[in-house]
Amino acid sequence: HNTSPSKFANVNFGDRGMSLEEELNDSNTFYLENDIAVIHKKPTPIQIVKVDYPSRSAAVIKEAYFKQASTTDYNGVYRGKYLDFEAKETKSKTAFPLKNFHEHQIEHMRKCMAQAGICFVIIRFAVLDRLFLLKASDLFTYWDRQTSGGRKSIPLTDIEKLAAELHYQINPLIPYLDAVDQIIG
Amino acid sequence: HNTSPSKFANVNFGDRGMSLEEELNDSNTFYLENDIAVIHKKPTPIQIVKVDYPSRSAAVIKEAYFKQASTTDYNGVYRGKYLDFEAKETKSKTAFPLKNFHEHQIEHMRKCMAQAGICFVIIRFAVLDRLFLLKASDLFTYWDRQTSGGRKSIPLTDIEKLAAELHYQINPLIPYLDAVDQIIG
Ligand SMILES: [Mg+2]
Ligand SMILES: [Mg+2]
Repeated sequence: HNTSPSKFANVNFGDRGMSLEEELNDSNTFYLENDIAVIHKKPTPIQIVKVDYPSRSAAVIKEAYFKQASTTDYNGVYRGKYLDFEAKETKSKTAFPLKNFHEHQIEHMRKCMAQAGICFVIIRFAVLDRLFLLKASDLFTYWDRQTSGGRKSIPLTDIEKLAAELHYQINPLIPYLDAVDQIIG
Repeated sequence: HNTSPSKFANVNFGDRGMSLEEELNDSNTFYLENDIAVIHKKPTPIQIVKVDYPSRSAAVIKEAYFKQASTTDYNGVYRGKYLDFEAKETKSKTAFPLKNFHEHQIEHMRKCMAQAGICFVIIRFAVLDRLFLLKASDLFTYWDRQTSGGRKSIPLTDIEKLAAELHYQINPLIPYLDAVDQIIG
Protein backbone atom coordinates (compact mmCIF):
# COMPACT_ATOMS: atom_id res chain seq x y z
CA HIS A 1 0.00 0.00 0.00
CA ASN A 2 3.03 2.30 -0.11
CA THR A 3 2.15 4.67 -2.91
CA SER A 4 4.77 6.90 -4.49
CA PRO A 5 3.02 9.97 -5.84
CA SER A 6 6.06 11.04 -7.82
CA LYS A 7 4.02 13.29 -10.07
CA PHE A 8 3.05 15.28 -6.99
CA ALA A 9 6.65 15.57 -5.80
CA ASN A 10 6.62 19.35 -6.09
CA VAL A 11 3.29 19.89 -4.40
CA ASN A 12 3.51 21.45 -0.96
CA PHE A 13 1.45 19.18 1.28
CA GLY A 14 2.48 21.25 4.26
CA ASP A 15 0.01 24.07 3.91
CA ARG A 16 -3.17 22.11 4.30
CA GLY A 17 -5.10 24.03 6.93
CA MET A 18 -5.83 20.84 8.88
CA SER A 19 -4.79 20.04 12.40
CA LEU A 20 -2.54 17.04 13.00
CA GLU A 21 -5.57 15.26 14.43
CA GLU A 22 -7.62 15.92 11.29
CA GLU A 23 -4.74 14.75 9.11
CA LEU A 24 -4.47 11.52 11.08
CA ASN A 25 -8.24 10.97 11.02
CA ASP A 26 -8.16 11.45 7.27
CA SER A 27 -5.28 8.97 6.97
CA ASN A 28 -7.12 6.45 9.17
CA THR A 29 -10.21 6.72 6.97
CA PHE A 30 -8.04 5.83 3.99
CA TYR A 31 -6.53 2.86 5.86
CA LEU A 32 -10.01 1.71 6.96
CA GLU A 33 -11.69 2.01 3.58
CA ASN A 34 -8.84 0.16 1.91
CA ASP A 35 -8.85 -2.65 4.49
CA ILE A 36 -5.30 -1.84 5.57
CA ALA A 37 -5.94 -1.18 9.28
CA VAL A 38 -8.70 -0.30 11.75
CA ILE A 39 -7.50 2.70 13.76
CA HIS A 40 -9.82 5.21 15.41
CA LYS A 41 -9.44 8.40 17.39
CA LYS A 42 -10.89 7.75 20.83
CA PRO A 43 -13.80 10.09 21.58
CA THR A 44 -13.07 12.87 24.06
CA PRO A 45 -14.30 11.75 27.48
CA ILE A 46 -17.09 13.98 28.78
CA GLN A 47 -18.66 14.18 32.22
CA ILE A 48 -22.36 14.68 31.59
CA VAL A 49 -24.24 16.55 34.33
CA LYS A 50 -27.59 17.55 32.84
CA VAL A 51 -29.59 16.17 29.93
CA ASP A 52 -32.92 17.49 28.61
CA TYR A 53 -35.34 15.19 26.83
CA PRO A 54 -37.57 17.44 24.73
CA SER A 55 -40.62 15.58 23.46
CA ARG A 56 -40.37 14.26 19.91
CA SER A 57 -36.71 15.18 19.56
CA ALA A 58 -33.28 13.96 20.51
CA ALA A 59 -31.86 14.26 24.01
CA VAL A 60 -29.89 17.48 24.50
CA ILE A 61 -26.90 17.64 26.83
CA LYS A 62 -27.25 20.98 28.66
CA GLU A 63 -24.31 20.75 31.07
CA ALA A 64 -21.17 18.72 30.69
CA TYR A 65 -17.43 19.04 31.30
CA PHE A 66 -14.32 17.81 29.56
CA LYS A 67 -12.58 15.04 31.47
CA GLN A 68 -8.85 14.42 31.46
CA ALA A 69 -8.14 11.59 29.02
CA SER A 70 -6.64 8.65 30.91
CA THR A 71 -5.10 6.99 27.88
CA THR A 72 -3.86 8.07 24.44
CA ASP A 73 -5.46 9.55 21.31
CA TYR A 74 -5.61 6.56 19.00
CA ASN A 75 -5.77 2.79 19.03
CA GLY A 76 -6.70 -0.09 16.80
CA VAL A 77 -5.48 -3.17 14.98
CA TYR A 78 -3.06 -3.65 12.10
CA ARG A 79 -1.60 -6.90 10.79
CA GLY A 80 -2.58 -8.74 13.97
CA LYS A 81 -0.94 -6.13 16.19
CA TYR A 82 -2.52 -3.79 18.71
CA LEU A 83 -1.49 -0.21 17.93
CA ASP A 84 -1.73 2.60 20.46
CA PHE A 85 -0.42 6.09 19.98
CA GLU A 86 -0.54 9.73 20.90
CA ALA A 87 -0.24 12.66 18.50
CA LYS A 88 1.41 15.88 19.65
CA GLU A 89 2.41 19.17 18.08
CA THR A 90 5.00 21.68 19.21
CA LYS A 91 5.87 25.20 18.06
CA SER A 92 9.46 24.71 19.15
CA LYS A 93 12.03 24.54 16.36
CA THR A 94 14.71 22.77 18.35
CA ALA A 95 13.23 20.27 20.82
CA PHE A 96 10.06 18.49 21.85
CA PRO A 97 8.99 19.50 25.41
CA LEU A 98 8.15 16.50 27.58
CA LYS A 99 5.50 18.51 29.45
CA ASN A 100 3.27 17.72 26.47
CA PHE A 101 2.81 14.28 28.02
CA HIS A 102 0.98 13.34 31.19
CA GLU A 103 2.25 10.66 33.53
CA HIS A 104 -0.93 8.58 33.00
CA GLN A 105 -0.37 8.55 29.23
CA ILE A 106 3.15 7.24 29.76
CA GLU A 107 1.82 4.63 32.22
CA HIS A 108 -0.87 3.60 29.74
CA MET A 109 1.72 3.03 27.01
CA ARG A 110 3.95 1.07 29.39
CA LYS A 111 1.02 -1.21 30.23
CA CYS A 112 0.13 -1.69 26.56
CA MET A 113 3.74 -2.55 25.75
CA ALA A 114 3.78 -5.11 28.58
CA GLN A 115 0.94 -6.80 26.62
CA ALA A 116 3.04 -6.68 23.42
CA GLY A 117 1.17 -3.75 21.95
CA ILE A 118 2.95 -1.41 19.50
CA CYS A 119 3.13 2.06 21.08
CA PHE A 120 4.51 5.27 19.68
CA VAL A 121 4.01 9.00 19.36
CA ILE A 122 3.56 11.05 16.24
CA ILE A 123 5.27 14.39 16.78
CA ARG A 124 4.79 17.38 14.56
CA PHE A 125 7.12 20.37 14.64
CA ALA A 126 4.52 22.83 13.39
CA VAL A 127 6.82 25.70 12.45
CA LEU A 128 9.25 23.40 10.64
CA ASP A 129 6.37 21.33 9.23
CA ARG A 130 8.28 18.16 10.04
CA LEU A 131 6.65 15.00 11.30
CA PHE A 132 8.18 12.04 13.14
CA LEU A 133 7.10 8.69 14.52
CA LEU A 134 8.99 7.97 17.74
CA LYS A 135 8.73 4.60 19.46
CA ALA A 136 7.36 4.77 23.00
CA SER A 137 10.44 2.92 24.29
CA ASP A 138 12.60 5.83 23.09
CA LEU A 139 10.22 8.35 24.63
CA PHE A 140 10.49 6.49 27.97
CA THR A 141 14.28 6.92 27.97
CA TYR A 142 13.91 10.71 27.98
CA TRP A 143 10.86 10.66 30.26
CA ASP A 144 12.67 8.65 32.92
CA ARG A 145 15.86 10.65 32.60
CA GLN A 146 14.17 13.97 33.52
CA THR A 147 13.50 12.73 37.04
CA SER A 148 17.23 12.11 37.52
CA GLY A 149 18.20 15.63 36.49
CA GLY A 150 17.95 15.14 32.74
CA ARG A 151 16.57 17.76 30.37
CA LYS A 152 12.83 18.38 30.06
CA SER A 153 12.70 17.99 26.30
CA ILE A 154 13.93 15.76 23.49
CA PRO A 155 16.31 17.62 21.16
CA LEU A 156 15.27 17.59 17.51
CA THR A 157 18.74 16.27 16.64
CA ASP A 158 18.02 13.20 18.82
CA ILE A 159 14.59 12.77 17.25
CA GLU A 160 16.19 12.89 13.81
CA LYS A 161 18.41 9.98 14.84
CA LEU A 162 15.88 7.86 16.75
CA ALA A 163 12.58 8.44 14.97
CA ALA A 164 11.22 7.73 11.50
CA GLU A 165 10.49 10.93 9.62
CA LEU A 166 7.10 10.91 7.92
CA HIS A 167 6.45 12.75 4.67
CA TYR A 168 3.03 13.96 3.59
CA GLN A 169 1.65 12.37 0.47
CA ILE A 170 -1.73 12.07 -1.23
CA ASN A 171 -3.32 8.91 0.12
CA PRO A 172 -2.92 8.42 2.97
CA LEU A 173 -1.93 11.96 3.82
CA ILE A 174 0.36 10.69 6.62
CA PRO A 175 1.64 7.21 5.70
CA TYR A 176 2.59 6.34 9.28
CA LEU A 177 1.94 2.61 8.90
CA ASP A 178 5.02 2.41 6.67
CA ALA A 179 7.04 3.35 9.77
CA VAL A 180 5.04 0.87 11.87
CA ASP A 181 6.00 -1.85 9.36
CA GLN A 182 9.63 -1.18 10.25
CA ILE A 183 8.85 -1.59 13.97
CA ILE A 184 6.89 -4.81 13.45
CA GLY A 185 9.48 -6.14 11.01
CA HIS B 1 -4.99 -15.48 37.11
CA ASN B 2 -7.99 -17.82 37.20
CA THR B 3 -9.05 -17.62 40.82
CA SER B 4 -11.41 -20.14 42.31
CA PRO B 5 -13.26 -18.44 45.15
CA SER B 6 -14.58 -21.72 46.51
CA LYS B 7 -15.33 -20.27 49.91
CA PHE B 8 -17.73 -17.87 48.22
CA ALA B 9 -19.43 -20.61 46.26
CA ASN B 10 -22.78 -19.96 47.94
CA VAL B 11 -22.71 -16.21 47.52
CA ASN B 12 -25.21 -14.91 44.98
CA PHE B 13 -23.17 -12.70 42.68
CA GLY B 14 -26.23 -12.15 40.53
CA ASP B 15 -27.95 -9.50 42.62
CA ARG B 16 -25.35 -6.81 42.39
CA GLY B 17 -27.27 -3.72 41.36
CA MET B 18 -24.68 -2.94 38.67
CA SER B 19 -25.27 -2.72 34.95
CA LEU B 20 -23.38 -5.10 32.67
CA GLU B 21 -21.26 -2.15 31.60
CA GLU B 22 -20.35 -1.32 35.20
CA GLU B 23 -19.53 -4.96 35.86
CA LEU B 24 -17.24 -5.08 32.85
CA ASN B 25 -15.57 -1.78 33.77
CA ASP B 26 -14.96 -3.18 37.24
CA SER B 27 -13.49 -6.37 35.75
CA ASN B 28 -11.29 -4.34 33.39
CA THR B 29 -9.96 -2.29 36.32
CA PHE B 30 -8.96 -5.55 38.01
CA TYR B 31 -7.25 -6.78 34.83
CA LEU B 32 -5.47 -3.43 34.40
CA GLU B 33 -4.26 -3.11 37.98
CA ASN B 34 -2.96 -6.67 37.95
CA ASP B 35 -1.15 -6.21 34.62
CA ILE B 36 -3.27 -8.88 32.96
CA ALA B 37 -4.74 -6.80 30.13
CA VAL B 38 -5.41 -3.21 29.06
CA ILE B 39 -9.06 -2.98 28.06
CA HIS B 40 -11.12 0.20 28.21
CA LYS B 41 -14.69 1.20 27.52
CA LYS B 42 -14.66 3.67 24.66
CA PRO B 43 -16.13 7.04 25.69
CA THR B 44 -19.58 7.82 24.31
CA PRO B 45 -19.14 9.98 21.22
CA ILE B 46 -20.68 13.42 21.66
CA GLN B 47 -21.35 16.16 19.11
CA ILE B 48 -20.49 19.40 20.89
CA VAL B 49 -22.38 22.47 19.66
CA LYS B 50 -21.84 25.16 22.29
CA VAL B 51 -19.15 25.65 24.92
CA ASP B 52 -18.95 28.46 27.49
CA TYR B 53 -15.62 29.57 28.91
CA PRO B 54 -16.41 31.27 32.21
CA SER B 55 -13.42 33.21 33.51
CA ARG B 56 -11.32 31.42 36.12
CA SER B 57 -13.19 28.15 35.74
CA ALA B 58 -13.38 25.13 33.51
CA ALA B 59 -15.07 25.17 30.10
CA VAL B 60 -18.75 24.20 30.30
CA ILE B 61 -20.45 22.36 27.47
CA LYS B 62 -23.89 24.01 27.16
CA GLU B 63 -25.27 22.16 24.12
CA ALA B 64 -24.27 18.77 22.83
CA TYR B 65 -25.86 15.64 21.37
CA PHE B 66 -25.23 11.94 21.61
CA LYS B 67 -23.78 10.52 18.41
CA GLN B 68 -24.38 7.00 17.17
CA ALA B 69 -21.31 4.93 18.07
CA SER B 70 -19.65 3.72 14.89
CA THR B 71 -17.74 0.88 16.51
CA THR B 72 -18.11 -1.32 19.60
CA ASP B 73 -18.08 -0.76 23.36
CA TYR B 74 -14.64 -2.02 24.34
CA ASN B 75 -11.19 -2.58 22.93
CA GLY B 76 -7.66 -3.11 24.11
CA VAL B 77 -4.70 -5.46 24.21
CA TYR B 78 -4.19 -8.82 25.89
CA ARG B 79 -1.30 -11.24 25.41
CA GLY B 80 -0.24 -9.52 22.20
CA LYS B 81 -3.75 -9.69 20.74
CA TYR B 82 -6.11 -6.88 19.84
CA LEU B 83 -9.46 -7.45 21.57
CA ASP B 84 -12.66 -5.76 20.46
CA PHE B 85 -16.10 -6.48 21.82
CA GLU B 86 -19.63 -5.35 22.38
CA ALA B 87 -21.69 -5.95 25.52
CA LYS B 88 -25.45 -6.43 25.21
CA GLU B 89 -28.29 -7.31 27.55
CA THR B 90 -31.68 -8.77 26.75
CA LYS B 91 -34.82 -9.32 28.82
CA SER B 92 -35.79 -12.29 26.67
CA LYS B 93 -35.62 -15.70 28.34
CA THR B 94 -35.39 -17.71 25.14
CA ALA B 95 -33.38 -15.92 22.48
CA PHE B 96 -31.09 -12.98 21.80
CA PRO B 97 -32.69 -10.49 19.34
CA LEU B 98 -30.33 -9.47 16.53
CA LYS B 99 -31.88 -5.99 16.40
CA ASN B 100 -29.63 -5.22 19.37
CA PHE B 101 -26.81 -4.88 16.86
CA HIS B 102 -26.31 -2.22 14.23
CA GLU B 103 -24.92 -2.99 10.80
CA HIS B 104 -21.92 -0.70 11.40
CA GLN B 105 -20.98 -2.62 14.56
CA ILE B 106 -21.01 -5.85 12.58
CA GLU B 107 -18.94 -4.23 9.83
CA HIS B 108 -16.48 -2.90 12.39
CA MET B 109 -15.98 -6.38 13.85
CA ARG B 110 -15.54 -7.88 10.37
CA LYS B 111 -12.82 -5.33 9.62
CA CYS B 112 -11.07 -5.98 12.94
CA MET B 113 -11.15 -9.72 12.30
CA ALA B 114 -9.64 -9.18 8.84
CA GLN B 115 -6.68 -7.63 10.75
CA ALA B 116 -6.52 -10.71 13.01
CA GLY B 117 -8.21 -9.02 15.96
CA ILE B 118 -10.16 -11.11 18.48
CA CYS B 119 -13.82 -10.04 18.32
CA PHE B 120 -16.76 -11.22 20.37
CA VAL B 121 -19.91 -10.18 22.18
CA ILE B 122 -20.74 -10.56 25.83
CA ILE B 123 -24.45 -11.29 26.09
CA ARG B 124 -26.40 -11.11 29.33
CA PHE B 125 -29.83 -12.65 29.69
CA ALA B 126 -30.91 -10.28 32.46
CA VAL B 127 -33.95 -12.20 33.71
CA LEU B 128 -32.10 -15.50 33.74
CA ASP B 129 -28.93 -13.81 35.05
CA ARG B 130 -26.87 -15.82 32.60
CA LEU B 131 -23.86 -14.46 30.79
CA PHE B 132 -22.16 -15.71 27.61
CA LEU B 133 -19.19 -14.86 25.46
CA LEU B 134 -20.02 -15.51 21.80
CA LYS B 135 -17.36 -15.27 19.10
CA ALA B 136 -18.12 -12.67 16.43
CA SER B 137 -17.75 -15.33 13.73
CA ASP B 138 -20.71 -17.20 15.26
CA LEU B 139 -22.71 -13.99 15.51
CA PHE B 140 -22.05 -13.33 11.80
CA THR B 141 -23.60 -16.71 10.89
CA TYR B 142 -26.94 -15.64 12.40
CA TRP B 143 -26.62 -12.06 11.23
CA ASP B 144 -26.10 -13.07 7.60
CA ARG B 145 -28.82 -15.72 7.74
CA GLN B 146 -31.57 -13.22 8.66
CA THR B 147 -31.24 -11.52 5.27
CA SER B 148 -31.95 -14.84 3.54
CA GLY B 149 -35.14 -15.46 5.50
CA GLY B 150 -33.56 -16.74 8.70
CA ARG B 151 -34.85 -15.85 12.16
CA LYS B 152 -34.17 -12.46 13.71
CA SER B 153 -32.71 -13.83 16.93
CA ILE B 154 -30.25 -16.40 18.22
CA PRO B 155 -32.00 -19.10 20.30
CA LEU B 156 -30.62 -19.52 23.81
CA THR B 157 -30.22 -23.22 23.10
CA ASP B 158 -27.83 -22.35 20.23
CA ILE B 159 -25.95 -19.89 22.42
CA GLU B 160 -25.57 -22.60 25.08
CA LYS B 161 -23.89 -24.77 22.44
CA LEU B 162 -21.74 -22.17 20.69
CA ALA B 163 -20.75 -19.71 23.41
CA ALA B 164 -18.70 -19.91 26.60
CA GLU B 165 -20.85 -19.34 29.66
CA LEU B 166 -19.30 -16.89 32.11
CA HIS B 167 -19.85 -17.17 35.86
CA TYR B 168 -19.60 -14.24 38.24
CA GLN B 169 -16.82 -14.44 40.80
CA ILE B 170 -15.05 -12.07 43.17
CA ASN B 171 -12.08 -10.69 41.23
CA PRO B 172 -12.58 -10.09 38.40
CA LEU B 173 -16.34 -10.02 38.70
CA ILE B 174 -16.69 -11.29 35.11
CA PRO B 175 -13.66 -13.45 34.25
CA TYR B 176 -14.18 -13.15 30.50
CA LEU B 177 -10.48 -13.38 29.62
CA ASP B 178 -10.60 -17.06 30.63
CA ALA B 179 -12.96 -17.57 27.68
CA VAL B 180 -10.70 -15.43 25.47
CA ASP B 181 -7.81 -17.75 26.39
CA GLN B 182 -9.78 -20.59 24.82
CA ILE B 183 -10.23 -18.57 21.61
CA ILE B 184 -6.55 -17.60 21.42
CA GLY B 185 -5.44 -21.12 22.34
MG1 LIG C 1 -2.79 14.46 21.25
MG1 LIG D 1 -23.32 -2.27 24.52
